[in-house]
Amino acid sequence: MVDDGSREPTVQQAEEGIDAADRLDRQLRFLVEVDRLKAVVRKTCITDKSRYENSAEHSWHLALMAAVLAEHAPPGVDVFHAVQLVLVHDLVEIDAGDFAWYDAQANEGKHERELAAATRLFGLLPADQSSQLLALWEEFEAKSTPAARYANALDRVQPLLLVRYTRDGDWAFSSSSRERLLQRMAPIEDGCPPLWQRVTAIIEEAFATGRYGRTPD
Amino acid sequence: MVDDGSREPTVQQAEEGIDAADRLDRQLRFLVEVDRLKAVVRKTCITDKSRYENSAEHSWHLALMAAVLAEHAPPGVDVFHAVQLVLVHDLVEIDAGDFAWYDAQANEGKHERELAAATRLFGLLPADQSSQLLALWEEFEAKSTPAARYANALDRVQPLLLVRYTRDGDWAFSSSSRERLLQRMAPIEDGCPPLWQRVTAIIEEAFATGRYGRTPD
Repeated sequence: MVDDGSREPTVQQAEEGIDAADRLDRQLRFLVEVDRLKAVVRKTCITDKSRYENSAEHSWHLALMAAVLAEHAPPGVDVFHAVQLVLVHDLVEIDAGDFAWYDAQANEGKHERELAAATRLFGLLPADQSSQLLALWEEFEAKSTPAARYANALDRVQPLLLVRYTRDGDWAFSSSSRERLLQRMAPIEDGCPPLWQRVTAIIEEAFATGRYGRTPD
Repeated sequence: MVDDGSREPTVQQAEEGIDAADRLDRQLRFLVEVDRLKAVVRKTCITDKSRYENSAEHSWHLALMAAVLAEHAPPGVDVFHAVQLVLVHDLVEIDAGDFAWYDAQANEGKHERELAAATRLFGLLPADQSSQLLALWEEFEAKSTPAARYANALDRVQPLLLVRYTRDGDWAFSSSSRERLLQRMAPIEDGCPPLWQRVTAIIEEAFATGRYGRTPD
């Protein structure tokens, strides 16, 4: 992507005979291929409950959240970098699918499937960008930087907000255990501390009023 | 949003008694409200032709394009700024709807409807962010900066790519006039010059093979 601000192919790329037109061909092929993320269905409904959310519109929501909530990010978070992380974080689902975090069986072998997907999908791009996107995806997965922890916090809080603020007011989490849901949301405490109090309040409200074990979260 | 890198409320905001918790409340309310963009249906199908695209996933696609194609942006384009432009450019459709560009009747009074939508939606945010998002939307609409012209170029080329690279290979534009389609795509020539040759080649191919007047574009 564009973190270093460079707009020119490197000497190495020029030596490899990869000119700008070839690069554009590959980039457009990749950008058409990723359209398939719109067909990956998640386990959370959009707030009007008309249907389940897909991973492309979910990624847009996270990118907008990353920008709008930037002032609450911990020190050291590069917000554009966080936006890039969330824009690419779910692309591997095009091949590997999306499964509920609480479905242990479906998640067996998940990392291997996603790594194969990353290799195929990012491999459509010029080599330098292929490496960059692989690095972004791995950084998000590993939560290895403040930006990645911020991005992961948003990825956890967003479906929780969709459930809590479902437009008809009839909301509930699918988790049957308060502890399990708190554990799932734990990355928010470190990744975006001001959100953590809101998250724990919502979870307490849910479990105080029996709003669990009924709908997907 | 975050162009100036500031993470702290200004003195003026502090004087107005808008503290960080109030700001977070308003931001979360806005971020839940914008979920409705996922229900705004566009006139272009996704590449598997299973359904029409919505404006939220379209915005994600543009944001990813802005980052991946950054090396082809004209000099002076701030890519993160362009990403922010595309993330917010369609939000007004939540209230104002999306209409085909070739439907003159449906587009009557469009700007007034969209301005009212911008006022309501961005008004959910703290005042400084409300002004920032309004400015981003107006900049996109006016194509008044290199970043806005780059963002507009992507907004024009993306549906053209979805039509041309429909996965079953059976593609066609709805326009019945080559000139009208070329005029619609014209902002690409200035906004992202390397894309223009691809666009004109696709349009020539379509009109050489009778691929027009059949499906939405």
